[in-house]
Amino acid sequence: MSETELIKLLQLYKNGQITDFEILETISQLPFQDLGCAKLDTHRGIRCGVEEVIFCPGKTPEHLKAICNIVATRTELCIFTRVSGEQVKLILQELPKAHYYQDGSIIAVNISEEPKLDGIAVVTGGTSDIPVAEEAAITAELMGNRVERIYDVGAAGIHRLFPHIETLRKANAIVVVAGMEGALVTVVGGLVSAPVIAVPTSVGYGANLGGLTTMLSMLNSCVPGVSVVNIDNGFGGGVSAHLINRKVHAKR
Amino acid sequence: MSETELIKLLQLYKNGQITDFEILETISQLPFQDLGCAKLDTHRGIRCGVEEVIFCPGKTPEHLKAICNIVATRTELCIFTRVSGEQVKLILQELPKAHYYQDGSIIAVNISEEPKLDGIAVVTGGTSDIPVAEEAAITAELMGNRVERIYDVGAAGIHRLFPHIETLRKANAIVVVAGMEGALVTVVGGLVSAPVIAVPTSVGYGANLGGLTTMLSMLNSCVPGVSVVNIDNGFGGGVSAHLINRKVHAKR
Amino acid sequence: MSETELIKLLQLYKNGQITDFEILETISQLPFQDLGCAKLDTHRGIRCGVEEVIFCPGKTPEHLKAICNIVATRTELCIFTRVSGEQVKLILQELPKAHYYQDGSIIAVNISEEPKLDGIAVVTGGTSDIPVAEEAAITAELMGNRVERIYDVGAAGIHRLFPHIETLRKANAIVVVAGMEGALVTVVGGLVSAPVIAVPTSVGYGANLGGLTTMLSMLNSCVPGVSVVNIDNGFGGGVSAHLINRKVHAKR
Amino acid sequence: MSETELIKLLQLYKNGQITDFEILETISQLPFQDLGCAKLDTHRGIRCGVEEVIFCPGKTPEHLKAICNIVATRTELCIFTRVSGEQVKLILQELPKAHYYQDGSIIAVNISEEPKLDGIAVVTGGTSDIPVAEEAAITAELMGNRVERIYDVGAAGIHRLFPHIETLRKANAIVVVAGMEGALVTVVGGLVSAPVIAVPTSVGYGANLGGLTTMLSMLNSCVPGVSVVNIDNGFGGGVSAHLINRKVHAKR
Amino acid sequence: MSETELIKLLQLYKNGQITDFEILETISQLPFQDLGCAKLDTHRGIRCGVEEVIFCPGKTPEHLKAICNIVATRTELCIFTRVSGEQVKLILQELPKAHYYQDGSIIAVNISEEPKLDGIAVVTGGTSDIPVAEEAAITAELMGNRVERIYDVGAAGIHRLFPHIETLRKANAIVVVAGMEGALVTVVGGLVSAPVIAVPTSVGYGANLGGLTTMLSMLNSCVPGVSVVNIDNGFGGGVSAHLINRKVHAKR
Amino acid sequence: MSETELIKLLQLYKNGQITDFEILETISQLPFQDLGCAKLDTHRGIRCGVEEVIFCPGKTPEHLKAICNIVATRTELCIFTRVSGEQVKLILQELPKAHYYQDGSIIAVNISEEPKLDGIAVVTGGTSDIPVAEEAAITAELMGNRVERIYDVGAAGIHRLFPHIETLRKANAIVVVAGMEGALVTVVGGLVSAPVIAVPTSVGYGANLGGLTTMLSMLNSCVPGVSVVNIDNGFGGGVSAHLINRKVHAKR
Amino acid sequence: MSETELIKLLQLYKNGQITDFEILETISQLPFQDLGCAKLDTHRGIRCGVEEVIFCPGKTPEHLKAICNIVATRTELCIFTRVSGEQVKLILQELPKAHYYQDGSIIAVNISEEPKLDGIAVVTGGTSDIPVAEEAAITAELMGNRVERIYDVGAAGIHRLFPHIETLRKANAIVVVAGMEGALVTVVGGLVSAPVIAVPTSVGYGANLGGLTTMLSMLNSCVPGVSVVNIDNGFGGGVSAHLINRKVHAKR
Amino acid sequence: MSETELIKLLQLYKNGQITDFEILETISQLPFQDLGCAKLDTHRGIRCGVEEVIFCPGKTPEHLKAICNIVATRTELCIFTRVSGEQVKLILQELPKAHYYQDGSIIAVNISEEPKLDGIAVVTGGTSDIPVAEEAAITAELMGNRVERIYDVGAAGIHRLFPHIETLRKANAIVVVAGMEGALVTVVGGLVSAPVIAVPTSVGYGANLGGLTTMLSMLNSCVPGVSVVNIDNGFGGGVSAHLINRKVHAKR
Repeated sequence: MSETELIKLLQLYKNGQITDFEILETISQLPFQDLGCAKLDTHRGIRCGVEEVIFCPGKTPEHLKAICNIVATRTELCIFTRVSGEQVKLILQELPKAHYYQDGSIIAVNISEEPKLDGIAVVTGGTSDIPVAEEAAITAELMGNRVERIYDVGAAGIHRLFPHIETLRKANAIVVVAGMEGALVTVVGGLVSAPVIAVPTSVGYGANLGGLTTMLSMLNSCVPGVSVVNIDNGFGGGVSAHLINRKVHAKR
Repeated sequence: MSETELIKLLQLYKNGQITDFEILETISQLPFQDLGCAKLDTHRGIRCGVEEVIFCPGKTPEHLKAICNIVATRTELCIFTRVSGEQVKLILQELPKAHYYQDGSIIAVNISEEPKLDGIAVVTGGTSDIPVAEEAAITAELMGNRVERIYDVGAAGIHRLFPHIETLRKANAIVVVAGMEGALVTVVGGLVSAPVIAVPTSVGYGANLGGLTTMLSMLNSCVPGVSVVNIDNGFGGGVSAHLINRKVHAKR
Repeated sequence: MSETELIKLLQLYKNGQITDFEILETISQLPFQDLGCAKLDTHRGIRCGVEEVIFCPGKTPEHLKAICNIVATRTELCIFTRVSGEQVKLILQELPKAHYYQDGSIIAVNISEEPKLDGIAVVTGGTSDIPVAEEAAITAELMGNRVERIYDVGAAGIHRLFPHIETLRKANAIVVVAGMEGALVTVVGGLVSAPVIAVPTSVGYGANLGGLTTMLSMLNSCVPGVSVVNIDNGFGGGVSAHLINRKVHAKR
Repeated sequence: MSETELIKLLQLYKNGQITDFEILETISQLPFQDLGCAKLDTHRGIRCGVEEVIFCPGKTPEHLKAICNIVATRTELCIFTRVSGEQVKLILQELPKAHYYQDGSIIAVNISEEPKLDGIAVVTGGTSDIPVAEEAAITAELMGNRVERIYDVGAAGIHRLFPHIETLRKANAIVVVAGMEGALVTVVGGLVSAPVIAVPTSVGYGANLGGLTTMLSMLNSCVPGVSVVNIDNGFGGGVSAHLINRKVHAKR
Repeated sequence: MSETELIKLLQLYKNGQITDFEILETISQLPFQDLGCAKLDTHRGIRCGVEEVIFCPGKTPEHLKAICNIVATRTELCIFTRVSGEQVKLILQELPKAHYYQDGSIIAVNISEEPKLDGIAVVTGGTSDIPVAEEAAITAELMGNRVERIYDVGAAGIHRLFPHIETLRKANAIVVVAGMEGALVTVVGGLVSAPVIAVPTSVGYGANLGGLTTMLSMLNSCVPGVSVVNIDNGFGGGVSAHLINRKVHAKR
Repeated sequence: MSETELIKLLQLYKNGQITDFEILETISQLPFQDLGCAKLDTHRGIRCGVEEVIFCPGKTPEHLKAICNIVATRTELCIFTRVSGEQVKLILQELPKAHYYQDGSIIAVNISEEPKLDGIAVVTGGTSDIPVAEEAAITAELMGNRVERIYDVGAAGIHRLFPHIETLRKANAIVVVAGMEGALVTVVGGLVSAPVIAVPTSVGYGANLGGLTTMLSMLNSCVPGVSVVNIDNGFGGGVSAHLINRKVHAKR
Repeated sequence: MSETELIKLLQLYKNGQITDFEILETISQLPFQDLGCAKLDTHRGIRCGVEEVIFCPGKTPEHLKAICNIVATRTELCIFTRVSGEQVKLILQELPKAHYYQDGSIIAVNISEEPKLDGIAVVTGGTSDIPVAEEAAITAELMGNRVERIYDVGAAGIHRLFPHIETLRKANAIVVVAGMEGALVTVVGGLVSAPVIAVPTSVGYGANLGGLTTMLSMLNSCVPGVSVVNIDNGFGGGVSAHLINRKVHAKR
Repeated sequence: MSETELIKLLQLYKNGQITDFEILETISQLPFQDLGCAKLDTHRGIRCGVEEVIFCPGKTPEHLKAICNIVATRTELCIFTRVSGEQVKLILQELPKAHYYQDGSIIAVNISEEPKLDGIAVVTGGTSDIPVAEEAAITAELMGNRVERIYDVGAAGIHRLFPHIETLRKANAIVVVAGMEGALVTVVGGLVSAPVIAVPTSVGYGANLGGLTTMLSMLNSCVPGVSVVNIDNGFGGGVSAHLINRKVHAKR
């Protein structure tokens, strides 16, 4: 609810057009929809630039069905992330118009047909990082961006990165997805002037510690201008890049 | 060295204006200046949008003097971060025109007088987070941005944050500096549509683990669009915000 | 055994009504029942305000059967927590009057019909936290309390919490169940004057570290009056709230 | 601001007694006092049952002075915790009526003379735990409680605890302060029906890890009804006990 | 090979009864038996007071068969620990005279019929600790000791321990097996004068960290005379107790 | 208080020679001496085979003086461990007959002149481990044992250990004190049949983690019969060895 | 591309034999082959002394097929490591001439028939370490070395190592593969003058922490000349030994 | 003692030229010199290719003096590492001919004048890594190698590394010393065919964790052929490089 709307509401109240009870009721009926088990945040898109997203791990079939029922009545973009095999079936059954993106384990409904905004690149160190990178890329695409994918250019053979430097330099935001020691982040960060969002993956041998080593390594990168999201959090990386790109285009 | 310059160089070589030896020499004389102990990266500003920065902890007086001698001959902005008491004296002696920012433990030379770009806000949870926040704010200011400071609005009394919501909503990038459990990041991230750079501080009791808990907590924030830099790394937070703001204004 | 009973016993002995051997025997036959593999603590309800509870993970079918046999002969409330699918079958077979609470993975026998005491609220950040929250809520209910459930009001959209503030302010004890960065604890703790028991859950991405990050974050909450139980320990959260509420009503 | 006050405000506005501007201004002038560097939360006592508390580590002399100036103008209880030697001097100079509690490293002003409420016990494992215990005990006393101190009754010689069992059983809340393996918490928790707040201390040999081992151990206590605060956080333990005791007496 | 045997060998060599080659050969044919993949340490019983033990996890069927073939030709006690279901079948097929102890997941061959030595007690906190305790108890029994089992006497209800104090006081070595916070070790250690070997188990909720918390807690026990073995290492606990008891009886 | 004494007391009571009040009083006046800040456990020697020991770090001068005053009135051995420079002065002033052992940072009073019992060896990996080893050795000597010291025989040059093998084989308990990777424990444990108590020290480079690596390494030793005490805990190692040796000699 | 080739290229360009566009194209068509999802580094053998290696965990069937198609067209050695059961089938189907090494979970194609170079030894502590050791040994063999295998000579019975000392002393590089406390590394390192590459394995009980303890222990080895690779990284150990041996033979 | 010498000794014994007692004595008088507190390993140079090295941290003045007295009587190279200010004075007083290398905190005596062997390069990421790099370089030089120093070529500006590639390619062993995320190791490892020894330094911001992050990152490097030594362990890095270079030259 914008400041303007709030003032309108207060004036209705002032003019006696709505009662004490009604104004309190309205204020307490804040913009979310209560399902008992879940409260969908229906104004999130306006407030935060990101629509409601359903993080699926741990959701029971009952909870998912209740959420799908609400989603079915709405027209905004809605994204389900980290959908497992069982959940894919259930959601596609409940929401027949939904689209399933297997590479990124994402399901989306009410996908916008608006023209896409240029400016995001997603880079990976190896081929094993691609599922996380796809989560980032598809997320950013669903939110209205065009994404350049530059995959398997890890720091062990940095010459593979060189043909893509111009593409990287043109980007408004670069998502670097890497596992192991994550050195690709430092190499990319040292070559470009775009903000870099680093996504550590849990790809690696023993002392990788499920991605913790990669994450800590990226946080210690000796190039400034790198910031980091959680392990395997392609979604978060995609959203951060989207918010930056959106700000850039908003100013055009 | 830009692509254009490289082609020019190759054509000079092609035309016989420079020799085999000269072209190899030029390519190997890449744009940095060798001090023996340190190699200043003199083209960094062009390549990465961030000037050379001297991270001072661990630098011996001899190393610092050698660096100051080179800096003295240059005209670009140069920033010394985390300067200790002894180092402040030495640098100000070597570089009399340098400016010392006590709150952020920063020294800068060749500060630009260009008009500042609006669009960055720096927010803290408590007063103990201010030194790190000042490192972020001063860094961003030195790089050409105007910074809104919103201090001591931690999540334990979130009503203190509300008067500043409009300021936050107008920002292109928000740096949130907080210690302890870092909940302020989630609260701010849930209210705005700007990208949020979270800077964990080492402020807190025992199980804060020198800021590690805060950092891990921020990486797990349930709002997307938050990315994190290293503990107490105000400088990194300021640079990330600067790179975003610079992209936004570049597109105008 | 109360002090009064002990003095009675000593007087019987003094009067020669019981022998040296008998008094030693009685003292050593302390109030528990020995099953070989397990010793049920039959006086626990009187001593600690909490009945014997059987934590089921790791119990073999043989051990569980032996325990059920004793439980069958008693009339006090007995609670089995974290019952797995196989264990549910076995216990319901052995104790046909037992009641199974699927949401909280709890089985209980000899449930009291006493009127419930008001005063406990259980709050969750997301829908994935509900199983742990139900363990807390059902535990508190079985021990004689009435529980207000306020679910899916996480800190990423704090306006969802506001309609419930009055309910929270009336509670004698609030159990906050949250995963990820656990910021909801700080937000709730900053709004109420009731003691808050925080239950971290293992819900989250990689650097959540199985709930460790959430737990550490909650322990570092910048609001005082918050105390924390183990990861996913809904049972412990429910008991702490029960003990507080019981003390409050005892004083009426 | 209570619901009643808000309705009053709205009615004034409705009746035209205050303007659009005034009502927005009032709502944004929420109940805190802005010092530039710090924002004192002046309504905290009413909202949370705990007055504003100044956590002193990391505060600069300038910040402390600014805070003292505001505190000097107020009449509510104000507590400074973890005051260091230098800070004690400064605060006592700025606030001559303040009282310094050396054992708990606390300074307080505007101490209430109200009768104290019975019901809190503070227990320690060893003598080295006493400074943290005193922080808890003095905090609870300043907030209006009477505190029973039971010190040096650690689990290595549990018979030392037995003469105090009746005192413990009468308490509404027990704060157990212990280092090393923290076993005292389990022993106390197994003997009483009061809620137990465990405060781990950083007292111990190498693998104590600065209190982390003690904290983790307490979180794993096999007695339910124990909840834990941060390492060495006597203040937090005292506040939790105070909030419980306050609820108990409020119901009388 | 004892010193006496070595001197004999040297004298044979001196007397020309064995050649240069033969003495070098003999020295290099040290007392172990080479299977290619494994080298059984056949003199271990004499040297270390503990027979060869086969730790089974990770052994392939091929490796296990090769080991069984050698074991079949020997007459000394041989113990296989941590045998999984598949491995039990294979070993019992290869070594039909072997005995399988299901509770401790142990298989043994060539079990001695010698009279057992009194002096070892094995104590557990809960029933879930019994498998580890049985590994300890059976190991000690196979090595020639008689073992008192005192199970489910955890610190949450320490009165359950009191009837067994005399048994504990008579022991030469006490193995305490416990999970969660491991407080039982401190309670037992404070009551007896025997050396206590603590075996942490991986029984517990989240922050138990797979037994790490229990292990660290036990290492920080405030009673001296407690030493600790690895998590779930019942075998190691049993051997330590055996070595102590063996020394005690050797001196009789 | 022994069982015999307890029965005597009960019979006095039965015979009317002591009153209800007196018997309760006596039972509650359990054998410790209350100093306000500390409760000395005066029967510990009888109950646990180890006299009261004062762990000095963190004790204030006031606490230490109070303890010294009680100790001065007693005749049993009393040991102060980890005494710092300041504390040494204070204790020697208060207890002029006390003896200070600089190498082990120990002060002792009322040292017994009884003949010493053979059977303990203390071994170190390097010279930097000697302070911890001396804490172990002096502790064991004060408790009535004779100690063989074998220093600087670390696993990097294991031939240095060989001349001492016979000494090691004769010991009833061996304390191995080592830092870095602690491999000496495995080498010694593989050569002897005595129980080995491993004391990890905090000697080492970076990833030694203050001794944590050494401690974890020792807990994973591939020889059974090794148990471990806390980092730098020479005192605990000495006590464990003493308790074993005492049991061995008790049986003679 | 060697310096010589680069100069040739530049001269062609200078002589007008290739155009501006062609030289830029050539420089950007650096020596790797782009599969869309993966970029094979076809010059790696020349540049780094190690051929392209495909780390298989996490590779999807589609990715693996694409890689096999390229590999099929080449004649250099190519190694697939950590192949799972499903992957073995797929690769052998796509590359019928490939050879599968079950013990080391390796598949290789285009295996050289060149004579092998002496100089590498691979040593294990136990039989459970053999799979990792075989990964190291087979890797080194495929790269052209002859490997001495010395298995099951762990530090708990170091006499088993002695017959092999001469073999170890002759090696140019020794790979020591061990789990648990990893003491074998120190024992071997103290006996030889060859560089030792330590490979920690994840073999061990609870506090082994999946090999982390072993790895940390090896990094703290008190013998210099030991360097360490990641947990279970037999491949890395084999390559390091190969690079050393290759340098030694190159100089002959 | 070589095999040849041992056979000579045995033959002397066989021929009656030495007695039973003498041969046992000789074998037990293994080649080290006993100082009481320290046992210098005087044959280490022959056995391991590395002379005795004295690691100074934690050594008391008394221990150091005893060691200097022995060193004074010898003619082999002896190295003292990590000498602190106080220790430097003491050692130079005791050993006036010793040479002090301030940059690497090393003192050495009996430095060889032999010609140096080419083949080692030491590379650093930043200027703050130089002290550790100097420890490595000086160690290698003292042991007879010539060292190429390439400093401040960190991965944030990898073009600074390119002019040195030929030097790196010629090396037999490369020591890479870096802090922060350690990405330089991966970049160097991807460009050369020499074995790379990575030395993590404790240079970095908060989540660097005293070098632990750098070390873990290096262990996870995606280039094979990299092995790692302990944090800040320049000495270990220098020795590993020396052992490799020595093997290479030995084969010439």
